[in-house]
Amino acid sequence: MSEPVHEALAAARLVDHHCHGVVIDGLDRTDFESLLTEGAAWPGISPFDSPVGVAVRRHCAPLLDLPRHAAPDAYLARRAELGPQEVNRRFLTAAGTDVFCVDTGYAPERLTTPVELAAAAGGTAYEIVRLEGVAEAVAARGVGPDAYADEFRAAALEAVGRPGVVAVKSVAAYRTGFDLDPARPSDAEVTRAAADWLAHGGRLADPVLVRHLLWTAVDLGLPLQLHTGFGDSDIRMHRVDPTHLTDWLHLTAGTIPVLLLHCWPYQRQAAYLAAVFEQVYLDVGLTLHHVGPARSRAILAEALEITPFRKLLYSSDAYGVAEFHLLGALSFRRGLAALLQERVDADELSLPDALRVVAWTSGDNARRLYGLPALSPVPPGERD
Amino acid sequence: MSEPVHEALAAARLVDHHCHGVVIDGLDRTDFESLLTEGAAWPGISPFDSPVGVAVRRHCAPLLDLPRHAAPDAYLARRAELGPQEVNRRFLTAAGTDVFCVDTGYAPERLTTPVELAAAAGGTAYEIVRLEGVAEAVAARGVGPDAYADEFRAAALEAVGRPGVVAVKSVAAYRTGFDLDPARPSDAEVTRAAADWLAHGGRLADPVLVRHLLWTAVDLGLPLQLHTGFGDSDIRMHRVDPTHLTDWLHLTAGTIPVLLLHCWPYQRQAAYLAAVFEQVYLDVGLTLHHVGPARSRAILAEALEITPFRKLLYSSDAYGVAEFHLLGALSFRRGLAALLQERVDADELSLPDALRVVAWTSGDNARRLYGLPALSPVPPGERD
Amino acid sequence: MSEPVHEALAAARLVDHHCHGVVIDGLDRTDFESLLTEGAAWPGISPFDSPVGVAVRRHCAPLLDLPRHAAPDAYLARRAELGPQEVNRRFLTAAGTDVFCVDTGYAPERLTTPVELAAAAGGTAYEIVRLEGVAEAVAARGVGPDAYADEFRAAALEAVGRPGVVAVKSVAAYRTGFDLDPARPSDAEVTRAAADWLAHGGRLADPVLVRHLLWTAVDLGLPLQLHTGFGDSDIRMHRVDPTHLTDWLHLTAGTIPVLLLHCWPYQRQAAYLAAVFEQVYLDVGLTLHHVGPARSRAILAEALEITPFRKLLYSSDAYGVAEFHLLGALSFRRGLAALLQERVDADELSLPDALRVVAWTSGDNARRLYGLPALSPVPPGERD
Repeated sequence: MSEPVHEALAAARLVDHHCHGVVIDGLDRTDFESLLTEGAAWPGISPFDSPVGVAVRRHCAPLLDLPRHAAPDAYLARRAELGPQEVNRRFLTAAGTDVFCVDTGYAPERLTTPVELAAAAGGTAYEIVRLEGVAEAVAARGVGPDAYADEFRAAALEAVGRPGVVAVKSVAAYRTGFDLDPARPSDAEVTRAAADWLAHGGRLADPVLVRHLLWTAVDLGLPLQLHTGFGDSDIRMHRVDPTHLTDWLHLTAGTIPVLLLHCWPYQRQAAYLAAVFEQVYLDVGLTLHHVGPARSRAILAEALEITPFRKLLYSSDAYGVAEFHLLGALSFRRGLAALLQERVDADELSLPDALRVVAWTSGDNARRLYGLPALSPVPPGERD
Repeated sequence: MSEPVHEALAAARLVDHHCHGVVIDGLDRTDFESLLTEGAAWPGISPFDSPVGVAVRRHCAPLLDLPRHAAPDAYLARRAELGPQEVNRRFLTAAGTDVFCVDTGYAPERLTTPVELAAAAGGTAYEIVRLEGVAEAVAARGVGPDAYADEFRAAALEAVGRPGVVAVKSVAAYRTGFDLDPARPSDAEVTRAAADWLAHGGRLADPVLVRHLLWTAVDLGLPLQLHTGFGDSDIRMHRVDPTHLTDWLHLTAGTIPVLLLHCWPYQRQAAYLAAVFEQVYLDVGLTLHHVGPARSRAILAEALEITPFRKLLYSSDAYGVAEFHLLGALSFRRGLAALLQERVDADELSLPDALRVVAWTSGDNARRLYGLPALSPVPPGERD
Repeated sequence: MSEPVHEALAAARLVDHHCHGVVIDGLDRTDFESLLTEGAAWPGISPFDSPVGVAVRRHCAPLLDLPRHAAPDAYLARRAELGPQEVNRRFLTAAGTDVFCVDTGYAPERLTTPVELAAAAGGTAYEIVRLEGVAEAVAARGVGPDAYADEFRAAALEAVGRPGVVAVKSVAAYRTGFDLDPARPSDAEVTRAAADWLAHGGRLADPVLVRHLLWTAVDLGLPLQLHTGFGDSDIRMHRVDPTHLTDWLHLTAGTIPVLLLHCWPYQRQAAYLAAVFEQVYLDVGLTLHHVGPARSRAILAEALEITPFRKLLYSSDAYGVAEFHLLGALSFRRGLAALLQERVDADELSLPDALRVVAWTSGDNARRLYGLPALSPVPPGERD
């Protein structure tokens, strides 16, 4: 049977609208296993023995010239033998991703720059500026509470003015969750909160300053990516249901696009917001590679239950290991293809409509939203 | 392969226990697209390019003598050519619905009356009284805070005394959400809250008055329909999880039936309540046509995971366009048929049991609950 | 087609790490129907007309020498004819369960002891101590507020020192929900709360004392089973999302294993916690027999989306009727087999990996966690 939707998705050149770099150095077993999981590598419970580990052994091993389902030891040995540069090149090339929008604000390991990442894949790099990082850099270099708001804004403006920057991002989900007063804080409130934060240090997690950061994003005018749902143990999951943002979305309607990232297990809640707010978009990145191709179709089916087809984007949210840049793409392609092809086969969807959904979600929605060229040259020399 | 469950559901005469009228006038593209979505018709993002739009083009176009998957322009042109009366007649007839229980409390457009709606379908009309509308009408005609409770009760009693009224409805979900003090408010509390509301005007959204409204429903003694979950951007989704009603359900056990409408994405939470509270029933109306036949089976499967089979009802919650009265019915029939037939084929369910589930959910549960006759005559001349 | 995963699961000797005894006496229709549901037997709505009732008639009737899908009357008549001892023996034997970890803290009916239960199945019994029961027994025999903490601890230590006790359990979900201050309460706080409780009586539901109970579990050092999600109408579902425990899990990391029981409809939230906290494990017991084999695969698929395969356990949470000990086992075997076999058939999972997942989840994970022998003798003479 010819399966034109599968073929279209297999051939699609993806825009990965939210991902991270890959680790430059070689990884020993502990390092690699730590990067495989949002948890940690625990004694007796290898991250290889999980859905993502199974997916890596199934889909990534052949790209290292190993049989499908290769054992972890063989996998790691071959990975070490080839060396990080060759491994990354193989996975990034196989991902079939044309455009990488890279969040450069989280890098506990030594990572590729956006340009290095894209170059290994033969693609184009853009950058996402993480606003918490900008605020914390302002605090780190020393600023008075009265000057905090202005200096944060100036630093954010400078950051987004760099070539290749197409969006900002917030990890408010990790810092306070979304159950925030939706209103823009007053100058006095910000100064007071800044005084407290600057006196005590630490990462930016004050609810007033997180609100201020979100409203600063509105002023910047670029699309805002918001971590939503799934992440590491630093998340309080019940506080990151994106529908807690409803009042804020009402207040900011008509300003900037808001991109809900990851979303699982709140993909239906995110879909609801995308269906009723013009400015809301979503993806199920991060989730896609953690559940693997065996389950990505089910997640996408929930994410698409009521989502307008111009509102779903692709992202991998891959971090650290290029396996995830590949797996995210593979899970997206196979899950969406299975979903759409079944509807075409049941005559619930026409083939031309299915192919439009493929084109939109795999890249056109992101290109339109971020103002990317249809086939863009590598932007000159940005570095995180 | 003979598929007796599909046949039984295709032939079932439905009781649509919660729906609205259809717009009487012709609709231009903007009007029609606005009615297609719980959002709005946004520039560059046509509601036709969404699951519900795809379902309309697939399943409604043939009833307008168009090919399946007709383009939006062709669809709208043919719709205009036939005119609203003929269009409505075609879809309403094709829905195969015998009984329409019509919520008459929401009509920003000029809509058919219940009798007009049912007549176009060859069915019978009943009416659902929206209690917020009654309360707001009392306020609008002028009442003192001391008299509010009595006048609201009197107006509600009068409204439910009209011929053909079988239930009341509350949109507390839209006004406060369900995280309310479950206790009946005291007279003094109601007077105080009424004083405040009547002084400031606006729609009824005071938590004390919303509680008072729900307890007034208990006094009226008719089944109470509660909007739950999915709706437009006026919902705060995290506040309309129906399990927030648990304490209130304990306090009101043994009084009135409570019908949880729509429920998505909380269909499992609604199912839990239906499984543990005698008075709780549910449907997945509104959701059914928004997700379409391609996904209604998945939603129904979740809604039925633990729900007693006498507790699920059918509704379309169609509003404005008769396409939705048809699509809701079609999505229900096909989704439930696929679900039950698969279980029969796997010998997990006997065919006689499957057919009983069909009879119950498609009409008998509603007929029993609302005290409808098995084959009822058109009630005399009610008009909202 | 040979289906090795189905065969492996059909043959697996299960560890049921959380269940209850069965009623010793004969059951009339009302008693039996009451035990079939987490609700009650309501007029006109038989619990037989629900997913669990359908599953009982399909899968349990043949073990009573009746045809599949036998009518409720025939089922109950044959059940009465055989008598409770023979009925229990048939279902418990057919369940294929080797090890029963029995919660002895809830017994409104006259139930089998763990040894009696296991003996009827030819298996081994262990015991789970319900800490609320221990605390309430301390209160019932009279204790001063100052002595409460010490006496509760002493009683708990004594209870877990009995032979065959392998874990403790808390029903904090029923008493307060999980939205608790995560910190260990001070001695003064406990004394004050105990004074209040001991003066007023009733079951233990004070938030300070529930917190104190959970921290006492940490001190005891045994695995802690936590009721999560689905249960009777005494649950406030929105308060038992296990992610509300996140701060407490951070504070208690490195101490005791925490086993999230049942979890539905929060199986994804539970999976998230199991993926990011070393000490967290989960099962979908109780849910399995209520949804039946027709739907257990879907629930397990969600529970396993990101769960490490060493973190999922099997339990029935069967209570009262031995039908549930069988149905839980059957739903687990069939649901997991369908899930894994499909992945093997699609080459998403290797057969050896699938068989390892079978071995782990059906028993090895529980054996390792509770320190059970690979093939354990019946422990000497414990009685609840």
